[in-house]
This record gives sequence, C-alpha cells and structure tokens, in this order.
Amino acid sequence: MNETLGLPELDRDLDLTPTGGAEGDDERRFAADLPGGWSVGGGINGGFLLALLGEAVRRTVPERPDPVTLAATYVGASTAGPAEVVTRVLRHGTLTSVAVELSQGGALRISALATFSDLTLLSDEVATTGEPPALPPVEECPVSSDAPPEFRRLAPLVERFEMRFDPACAGWVAGRPSGRGELRAWFRFPDREPDPLALLMVADAMPPVTFDLGRPGWAPTVQLTVHVRAVPADGWLRLRQHTRNVAGGFFEEDCEIWDSAGRLVAQARQLARVPRA
Amino acid sequence: MNETLGLPELDRDLDLTPTGGAEGDDERRFAADLPGGWSVGGGINGGFLLALLGEAVRRTVPERPDPVTLAATYVGASTAGPAEVVTRVLRHGTLTSVAVELSQGGALRISALATFSDLTLLSDEVATTGEPPALPPVEECPVSSDAPPEFRRLAPLVERFEMRFDPACAGWVAGRPSGRGELRAWFRFPDREPDPLALLMVADAMPPVTFDLGRPGWAPTVQLTVHVRAVPADGWLRLRQHTRNVAGGFFEEDCEIWDSAGRLVAQARQLARVPRA
Repeated sequence: MNETLGLPELDRDLDLTPTGGAEGDDERRFAADLPGGWSVGGGINGGFLLALLGEAVRRTVPERPDPVTLAATYVGASTAGPAEVVTRVLRHGTLTSVAVELSQGGALRISALATFSDLTLLSDEVATTGEPPALPPVEECPVSSDAPPEFRRLAPLVERFEMRFDPACAGWVAGRPSGRGELRAWFRFPDREPDPLALLMVADAMPPVTFDLGRPGWAPTVQLTVHVRAVPADGWLRLRQHTRNVAGGFFEEDCEIWDSAGRLVAQARQLARVPRA
Repeated sequence: MNETLGLPELDRDLDLTPTGGAEGDDERRFAADLPGGWSVGGGINGGFLLALLGEAVRRTVPERPDPVTLAATYVGASTAGPAEVVTRVLRHGTLTSVAVELSQGGALRISALATFSDLTLLSDEVATTGEPPALPPVEECPVSSDAPPEFRRLAPLVERFEMRFDPACAGWVAGRPSGRGELRAWFRFPDREPDPLALLMVADAMPPVTFDLGRPGWAPTVQLTVHVRAVPADGWLRLRQHTRNVAGGFFEEDCEIWDSAGRLVAQARQLARVPRA
C-alpha cells in the first residue's frame, strides 16, 4: 500500500487492512500479508507475530496504544502469505484487555490475551534490583550475519535487524557452545528506534538459547508471555536470554530487554520444545 | 453435592456442575460456587481460580488431564458465590489448547489460554541448572498462621494449607521486611498430595513479594502465566518467590515450585500492581 512507502521496514510489514468492524467497535477484523522476510525455519518468527497482534490491538483501542502484557499460545506455525487477525475487547479501563487471534486459511495459528495501556501515564518509580547484562563494546561483538550460512538461509529474520552477540556466549556460531544456556547481545533496528510495540518483536528475536547448549535447530514456542515495563529510550538495546530448566523435552526461555538508559523495559518468558537431536 | 463428601478440601472446592455441552464437545459450560475460604482481601485467590479454570479444561479434554501452561488475564476481582466457567477447545493434539473464561453475574472476571497434555508421557530428560531454595528444616520455619491477625482475617486462604516461611525472609511478619524482594517457604496441603492441577493453586499461594519490600497490602494480579514442568513427587513442596523489577507502579513476581525429589515442577510469573502506600 502506497501510504506505507518510506516507513521503517518493521512498520511497513506490520501493515493491516481493516476488513470488519468500525473504529470504536469492540470487535475488529484485519487482513495481513505475512512477509517471508521474518521467517525462521519455514515459519514466521513468533516475535514478529506478537508485534502484529499488538498492532491489531492498538488499532482496536488507539487510546491505549502500548502493550503491557501479551500472552500468546502458538497453536500452529504461521507461514508467509495472507492471514486474518481478529480482536475482541474484554474490558476497557486504564488497563484495557483484548483477546486477539491470528488465522490462516481458516486455521487458527495463535490465540493471545493482551493488556494495553498508555505507558507514558505510569509513575516514575523505578526500584529495579536486576542488573543489565555486562556486554563488551558493540564493535567487539560479532553481528548475527556472521552466523553459519545454513542458519542465515533458514532464518532471513536475522537480516531484519542488527544483533551483536557477546563473544563469551557466541561459541555456538563456531560449534563451541558454552553449555551455560545463556545468550547476550546488543540489538537495534537499522531504520527506527525501539518503542513498546517493537519490543514484542525483540522479545523473541534471539536464536533459541538451546543453541548455547549444543542443541541447534528449531525450538517451537508453545507459549510466550511478554511484559513491557517502560517506554524504551532511543539507542541500542541489550538482550539477555537464558534457561534454567531443560526437562521432559521442553525448556523455559527468559528474555530481558534493557534500554540504553539502563532500564529493564521488557521481560519475556516462553515455554518451547527442545529441538530434536 | 454428595459425591464430593470425603474428598480433600481443594478437590471438593473445585467442584463444577456441567450446564452446557456434552462430554466430548469442544465447548462446555460449568457452574461453580466460589468458596469464601479461598479469599484474600475480599477477592478469591488467583491461584485457586487458576486451578478451577484448569479443572474445567480437564473436564473438557479428559484425555489431556495435566496443565502444561496456563496464562490468565485478570479482568476483574472474583468474589465468593456463583460463577460460570466456559471452555472452548482451540486445538486437539499431544498438546491440546483450550480457551477458558470465568464470569460472575455475566461480568467477565478472568480470560485464560491453557495448554494441556499428559505429563506422564514426557521424556525423562532433566537438565535443570536452577537450584532449589535452601530452606531450614520445616520445624524451624514459622507457619503462615503466625502471620499478623489482620492478615489472617483478610486472608482466610492461609487456613487452606500449611505454609512455613524461611525465617530469613519472614521478617515482614514482625514489621521488619528484608527489602530483598524474596520469600521462601515449605508448602503442603493438609489432606492431599500435590498434583499438576494443584500446582496452579500453589503458584499464587504466597503473599505478594512486596511484603518483603515493606509494601504490605493487596497486590492485584494483572496477568499470571504458569508452566507446569513435571508431575510433583509426594511430600513437601519448596517455594521461592522473588521480584527484580518494581517500576511504574507494577512488579513482576516469579514463583518457583520444587518438589520433594528436588525437581523444579512449576515456574510461574505474574505482573501485579504495587500495593498503594
């Protein structure tokens, strides 16, 4: 669509066409065209899909433009091509709750529950005891496009942003995973600053933490919950992703997003399947 | 109902009466009567409500009896009395996905997305790097019924189980919170062993971690996601609850549940409002 020309890539790709309901209605429908550029291993990246769901929610409740929580159940893999997004407001308030689902060809792919608000209205109180990840300077960290070619081919996603891995936990790139189950990286979009909606994408942008455990391969997300805690400052984001409990064929993956002002702006946790050996 | 006589208290209180749909249908309705004994501060405990939603899901998909993930958005406080629970299966599979909502008097209280399976079918692989909380022996830990009387009056919930707090982070009982934002405790039901469904209740059984930050009071849950990772062994459970990011009037609260065999059997995270000063 012409009006999206000149927009940053993420914003252009989050384009939605209203197909049902009118502005102000509690139930809306939108058509989307999932771009193959956000693929990983044949499916569309779960973080991009979260941001797309978030965009549909924002279009439904524009007076509450920012995600506070988004909890998604991945029912099936989404692929490049047409999709439908349906929203349903559950409650209006300072915190507005919205159910949102994404389908393709009539088959449900993701069902999610969102809580949106206006993050600029929150109190200024900050009492964070967590520490941002200690990362070497950006220029000392290899970029994600240095990942093995077979990974880049499977994941055109990595061309959508600049992710620079802490060398201390990037040994998996050269087949030497640390075994600690932790990834740390700098992150930025090439053509835009971060905002609360974009953090939904960033929350699932890193490779599976199982890469650092010597278990490369696709780790399908079962469930992913993101809490967006503040409007991020401009500049590089710092990401830390780790797991503490690989068991029964599943693992939890916690992702923290810190902004350039040293603020913990998002916390995400997913349950995913351990890649098959 | 007579058939519930002699059951443990939790199981008796999770009683549901089918009111719509038949066994095997993808959409079911149930009537419940929320018991005041599970109240905290005038509302019904969020963990008990999760277990009730889980029970409705189990009744809907009995071939997948165990919760794997349950992600709930708390739209409004639930109170003692009649309630309606509606389930809708989103997908059948090894992992079965179900949407479930609880209403009272036609007003939505909780909307949730569940993933259920049969946890006894999971692989035996365990590679947990997390450590169970170091707790003094049970008999050295004060029981929750030692909490201040004004707390017990507000929270009849604490009479439903035996929770024994690690004295090192129970100073808030005597008005001397540690300020670390951490609670640790032993937990058991008086009349039953833990099982996967009961872990949903346990995941929100502790007082808000803000008690340990000198911010007592009700901390309303906005969103709560529980991952149940294994069938718990019989015996005492160990709980650790902590926060790392109190900001903007909200805090995240992570709760780990470890069983008597030293296994991390559930991981929960909620976003809650900081109690008003």
